Amino acid sequence: MKGSILIGQSGGPTSVINASLSGSIDAAKQSEQIDNIYGAINGIYGIINHQIIDLSLEDSNDIELLKSTPGSILGSVRYKLPNFQDDPTDYIKIVEVFKLLNVKYFIYIGGNDSMDTCSKISKYFQSINFPCNVIGVPKTIDNDLINIDHTPGYASAIKYIATTISEIYQDISCYRKGKVTIVEIMGRDAGWLTAGSKLASLTNNGPDLIYLPEHPFDIEDFLNKVSRIYQQKGHALIAVSEGIKDINGKYILEYRSSNSSDEFGHLQLGGVAQVLAEYVEKRLHLPNRNVELNLPQRCASHLASLTDVNEAYNCGYYAVKYIIDHTDKMVTMLRIKNYEIEYQLTDLSSVANFVKTVPVHFICQNGSNISQDFIDYALPLIQGELNISYQNGLPKFANLKKYYINLSKEHN
Amino acid sequence: MKGSILIGQSGGPTSVINASLSGSIDAAKQSEQIDNIYGAINGIYGIINHQIIDLSLEDSNDIELLKSTPGSILGSVRYKLPNFQDDPTDYIKIVEVFKLLNVKYFIYIGGNDSMDTCSKISKYFQSINFPCNVIGVPKTIDNDLINIDHTPGYASAIKYIATTISEIYQDISCYRKGKVTIVEIMGRDAGWLTAGSKLASLTNNGPDLIYLPEHPFDIEDFLNKVSRIYQQKGHALIAVSEGIKDINGKYILEYRSSNSSDEFGHLQLGGVAQVLAEYVEKRLHLPNRNVELNLPQRCASHLASLTDVNEAYNCGYYAVKYIIDHTDKMVTMLRIKNYEIEYQLTDLSSVANFVKTVPVHFICQNGSNISQDFIDYALPLIQGELNISYQNGLPKFANLKKYYINLSKEHN
Repeated sequence: MKGSILIGQSGGPTSVINASLSGSIDAAKQSEQIDNIYGAINGIYGIINHQIIDLSLEDSNDIELLKSTPGSILGSVRYKLPNFQDDPTDYIKIVEVFKLLNVKYFIYIGGNDSMDTCSKISKYFQSINFPCNVIGVPKTIDNDLINIDHTPGYASAIKYIATTISEIYQDISCYRKGKVTIVEIMGRDAGWLTAGSKLASLTNNGPDLIYLPEHPFDIEDFLNKVSRIYQQKGHALIAVSEGIKDINGKYILEYRSSNSSDEFGHLQLGGVAQVLAEYVEKRLHLPNRNVELNLPQRCASHLASLTDVNEAYNCGYYAVKYIIDHTDKMVTMLRIKNYEIEYQLTDLSSVANFVKTVPVHFICQNGSNISQDFIDYALPLIQGELNISYQNGLPKFANLKKYYINLSKEHN
Repeated sequence: MKGSILIGQSGGPTSVINASLSGSIDAAKQSEQIDNIYGAINGIYGIINHQIIDLSLEDSNDIELLKSTPGSILGSVRYKLPNFQDDPTDYIKIVEVFKLLNVKYFIYIGGNDSMDTCSKISKYFQSINFPCNVIGVPKTIDNDLINIDHTPGYASAIKYIATTISEIYQDISCYRKGKVTIVEIMGRDAGWLTAGSKLASLTNNGPDLIYLPEHPFDIEDFLNKVSRIYQQKGHALIAVSEGIKDINGKYILEYRSSNSSDEFGHLQLGGVAQVLAEYVEKRLHLPNRNVELNLPQRCASHLASLTDVNEAYNCGYYAVKYIIDHTDKMVTMLRIKNYEIEYQLTDLSSVANFVKTVPVHFICQNGSNISQDFIDYALPLIQGELNISYQNGLPKFANLKKYYINLSKEHN
């Protein structure tokens, strides 16, 4: 069926979410079934509130630059659609807009929650026999989606993490008596990002200890190990997930002494490195420093993995290829021997709301390090670098003109 | 005079301190006056404790890779030499080693404190008529040395800062209702690094507010401005130096409520962004996030400025050219119109222990932003990118073999 395509982005940004958009736009331009290419501003919010732009009018240089532009260029949203059985209001508005713009193809680029949104819309369309195909494009630095070898965005995040850990190790090891440096990495329930720090061992600058949320954290064992490493080397580098917990499931972050007196009365994740540094100070009396890698993990596109950029682009590209004849699916990546990726489809409902954690055989040394199996899994993902365009000494980003559609006019 | 050269590194590492070492080694190899090229491990400590290596035996590929290797490859030290009039012990040991190795040329790469060390050694040599020339090579990300246009290391640090700010702005601006994001940048007494964040405005992603230690910080004015910006944009990005102080000279960090109950009883710098985020939370009730750029500011050599790398290399190179006929000097950089650099010499004692802060005309909007004058000053520094060698998807660093000299053998 011939018609328009509408593309949206949702959830937390990654370094390569715009590469997927770029792939979808390129494929849509090539398709004879697609006559208009629209973008939803702030995802589902933009559809419901008539914030839609015409992507076909954008300069092709900017579409190319999307491959190295961080953030969600269309704007993102965190909005949980109610079940349409409970409240169909949003769904009715969506169908109204889709009819106005003759949208026959809907692509949503996002993570776990966004695949839930995507799945709900798809199921609603099927329930009313509305003729619009729906396909989700995966993205998340967290790598916690199931039914996929790894998620677009993850590889660039760990290339950033491993590079930064490697540089930090080089920096901190220059003193005879250095510091115990604790680096906090994103990941509440899954330690995929923190595991990525292990790749720095390939430059001989890997962390001395690595702790993930998947394995109970023992503060005494940690202190013993840190003490021993510091005695041997005169410094120590430890990578920890923000979400590490003790054997009783209590967040190590909650060990923080000052947190009890927090006048705002709420516990924020982030800060576990600070808690551990305080233990190193108090119990081991060793000089210490805590480093939180923070936002650059998901937006340092100047250091994106070329493999990741290409895969994210291809996921967007294949989504459009597949959407002509398929609906209610997510594009997925299957790993073939010697590292090749096949782009296939999986059911949206099989993906939404599930979480993939780091498997046991990737964790070793009683939960304080990462195995060779993980390196074998992750190393192919970080290969290659993008040829970044610089302007004024800084990376140049895509600058979409955002030509808004006047939906009331379309209506008349 | 013909003899050996000894090179040491000292103080906090930068992304390009090893580029200076590389320049000195290359120049020493070319000099007919220099027959041996030695390196001191951990600076002055290595000289006093006989930790000296033969740099001429290192692989030339590694010497080249030094240009993109962070950290102090020879090891660093923070050790304040006593005045030789008070206690000559260290100085006597230094001369002993220099005699053993026939060191006629001594080069010390470092910042403010290291120039003090360098100056003291130089003055001691002159006082006993010891025939060894001494030249300092400047480095510090802080850019706080006087008698120099800017310091090697600074440019790469602000290229990293401006790039990261630019990427973070791209990331945080994707939500309709985003967060107030406060980014903490190094700099206790001088705001040079934080000022560098202004360069991100060239990508239209500059911070909304920028605060340096040079101008008194007013918390009420800050909250008013943040509130207004958030109402307009739905997000705000603020860059602050770790060392900002109020009108009474009190560190804003000390405003921290939980700090009073700190059981370790000492106040650490770092954490001011957290304090300000707490104010935004408590007073403005706006969603917020704090980001500390931390160590990558001084070690992210994958993003080094090519201009900086070349200048650092040249400072090391010219130090060796000049040392044949000069002593008691530091290499300095003079800016010629249209941005060219001339490498000259300045007296060590005119540099050591002085601090250069950000001039008033670089600061604007009542201390909450940075002027065009600063952009004009800083923009040439961040031009160009190094062609980084990658291995296994990660930057490849120099791996010195470190052939130690047996000084007892030399002695016999």
